[in-house]
Amino acid sequence: MPVITELDTHDIRFPTSLELDGSDAMNPDPDYSASYVVLRTNDSTELQGRGFVFTIGRGNDVQVEAIRALRHLVVGRDVAAVCSELGAFARSLTDDSQLRWLGPEKGVMHMAIGAVVNAAWDMAARRARKPVWQFIADMSPAEIASMIDFRYISDAIAPGEGLELLQQSAGMKRERIGVLRQKGYSAYTTSPGWLGYSDEKLARLAKEAVSAGFGTIKLKVGLSIEDDVRRCRIAREAIGPHVGLAVDANQRWDVGVAIPWLERLRPFNLAWVEEPTSPDDVLGHATIRKAVHPVPISTGEHTQNRVVFKQLFQAQAVDLVQIDAARVGGVNENLAVLLMAAKYGVRVFPHAGGVGLCELVQHLAMADYVAISGKMDDRSIEFVDHLHQHFIDPVRIRHGRYLAPELPGFSAEMRPASISEFQFPNGSAWRTKAVNA
Amino acid sequence: MPVITELDTHDIRFPTSLELDGSDAMNPDPDYSASYVVLRTNDSTELQGRGFVFTIGRGNDVQVEAIRALRHLVVGRDVAAVCSELGAFARSLTDDSQLRWLGPEKGVMHMAIGAVVNAAWDMAARRARKPVWQFIADMSPAEIASMIDFRYISDAIAPGEGLELLQQSAGMKRERIGVLRQKGYSAYTTSPGWLGYSDEKLARLAKEAVSAGFGTIKLKVGLSIEDDVRRCRIAREAIGPHVGLAVDANQRWDVGVAIPWLERLRPFNLAWVEEPTSPDDVLGHATIRKAVHPVPISTGEHTQNRVVFKQLFQAQAVDLVQIDAARVGGVNENLAVLLMAAKYGVRVFPHAGGVGLCELVQHLAMADYVAISGKMDDRSIEFVDHLHQHFIDPVRIRHGRYLAPELPGFSAEMRPASISEFQFPNGSAWRTKAVNA
Repeated sequence: MPVITELDTHDIRFPTSLELDGSDAMNPDPDYSASYVVLRTNDSTELQGRGFVFTIGRGNDVQVEAIRALRHLVVGRDVAAVCSELGAFARSLTDDSQLRWLGPEKGVMHMAIGAVVNAAWDMAARRARKPVWQFIADMSPAEIASMIDFRYISDAIAPGEGLELLQQSAGMKRERIGVLRQKGYSAYTTSPGWLGYSDEKLARLAKEAVSAGFGTIKLKVGLSIEDDVRRCRIAREAIGPHVGLAVDANQRWDVGVAIPWLERLRPFNLAWVEEPTSPDDVLGHATIRKAVHPVPISTGEHTQNRVVFKQLFQAQAVDLVQIDAARVGGVNENLAVLLMAAKYGVRVFPHAGGVGLCELVQHLAMADYVAISGKMDDRSIEFVDHLHQHFIDPVRIRHGRYLAPELPGFSAEMRPASISEFQFPNGSAWRTKAVNA
Repeated sequence: MPVITELDTHDIRFPTSLELDGSDAMNPDPDYSASYVVLRTNDSTELQGRGFVFTIGRGNDVQVEAIRALRHLVVGRDVAAVCSELGAFARSLTDDSQLRWLGPEKGVMHMAIGAVVNAAWDMAARRARKPVWQFIADMSPAEIASMIDFRYISDAIAPGEGLELLQQSAGMKRERIGVLRQKGYSAYTTSPGWLGYSDEKLARLAKEAVSAGFGTIKLKVGLSIEDDVRRCRIAREAIGPHVGLAVDANQRWDVGVAIPWLERLRPFNLAWVEEPTSPDDVLGHATIRKAVHPVPISTGEHTQNRVVFKQLFQAQAVDLVQIDAARVGGVNENLAVLLMAAKYGVRVFPHAGGVGLCELVQHLAMADYVAISGKMDDRSIEFVDHLHQHFIDPVRIRHGRYLAPELPGFSAEMRPASISEFQFPNGSAWRTKAVNA
């Protein structure tokens, strides 16, 4: 009986702070990093599963330790049982009572669970010879519902209600898979808008983004209101009136600061305002949203778990949400969030960029379209053109759209050469550079 | 110029699961543990500061790693500057942008910050030759306000408003210090109520608690409604009608489960119901509170930071709150919570027990009485009679009241012999026992 024989971890860091790629109002000098996990098995095909947490440098070692702390819950488990009961598998990780104390279900320990859960999904989808999006899409509504932990969200969506919603969506699956394979899924890009870029670079990259077919671009804001007004004007002039312009404040503001700031940005007809304040502040988002209506408010990339997403929906605190593939407890918890978003009619614009986040989250957005919300035309997946070369099955963007992945698994596997080069602190990239993390 | 020369850490675990001490509905077999940190200096007195995170076993190693990840922000800093600007010191830890990504301000990384911040307060109070409660009480209102990070809470309490509130309280300080030294501070006890105890042990310990002078006892509930009804009846009969009876569900229920469950417990005239559901669910607590009114609802021991406390107050989700000395970002963030609680008129019943939590939190409650809320008669500090023997300056309980600590510092120092015996995994307690964590 094949079992999971080992849980390997790697501390991978890219010295991105040298170029100010990824710089924003909260994160001036990120070194994009991954706490990478490999589940190994003694299956006859040498089946493996990969997952990771995305971090921005220091602390990636702590994150790796947290993943290792899950080893006793994983190694020795029956591969077939894990692959056929991913809901029970995920819950067994969140239910370790001693580890749960370190959250519960938030922060370092919860992201570690997310990485291991995602690695198990990668393994299960490879075993089924399907990309993860299709692996989910091919599940019955009852199977999808069984993936979700309804604990603490049953007052917003009861299990029976979730199942009904999935059943209503099921009849259209085949047709939607055809559409997805033909058209792909809309992407928007943040590549022009990092805070560390000059005005000239912003204008040039914004025009290039429109030429490349992107329907929306996003700028980082929040450090200086005058700079933001100027940069929004430059961007709007570069892209014209018909391309979407979103802004992202990366949690920079208090509620009372966000409201007048956004009044100043109102003339630029923003597609949305992302992370105006603390990701923990459900009521703060609701207050801001009401005050600046109809400017659309959003958050989610740092939303810690389904319980906070639930409240964002209940409080009508957001017009749309980001989901992040590696922040919450893996695919299972993201399915819970997607199901609630569908029920509440909230649009989902997945967070990506970082290291491998585009690769992962495309699967979730596509599964949502095919099997959950049934919607794709009113939403878009973030795209940042960074670090894809380190992955075996990188995202494919054509004319501003993500093409549906075709290889089995979660597109999570990093190239061996990249793992070796960017291992911290002993990889060649770190030994040879005069860079200090 | 004396500087902080080293940040030492220790993984300390006590095999408490052998006795079911500390067992509750979520945590059946905790091994009470501490991720212990010592700040060393080259001050002429060999000044040190101690702090810790309380955990319940597995994962204590991850927590220790997180504390070590803060070393670069601490070692080499000027002792006098840290001690005189503890607000800036705390903020410098939460503001490391790369580490902030791992929270922000929640979970493992935030608790690590809390331990280091508390160690700095221990150091500063020792240097001033005062217990921490008095070190705070002797600060001017402006100094106390400067300890608080108002970011993300300014919509609930602006800095100027906080300062005014502190100024209003300042005139009574001297008198209150006299009262506190004479009378101590009310304690309640959870020692009778662990879920793993037999009915007989519960009844016996409940009677002993009343005899010892405790005005309130607390029971763990949440696994079986029939058991809870029976145990509440036994406890109420043991303590009589005039002693307070609180219950603690340790996050066991969904909103829709909590409400009918609490209807069944209503006849026992509960002093409060603690942690009825997820600590992240502000709106859920508000819903439960409204439904079971006037049964008092509370949470806080797992509340991750001031942003969630703020919302509990804003949403009128709780009748009272617990604070925890080692869950949030240390003394500074607890001062923010205490100030908001005072403004919103919410009573504070500090969480204690665990390892050394009684030792720490007594200082915060006493500082609150003297310098912030000015209230003591309507509130009480949890007391559990566990593991105090491992501390140099253990709490002193007389007739159900905490006596004000007199030794300098935060009462956080563990005995060297205890550190050596309970080091995990190589201390003598772990080498000789047939215990596996």
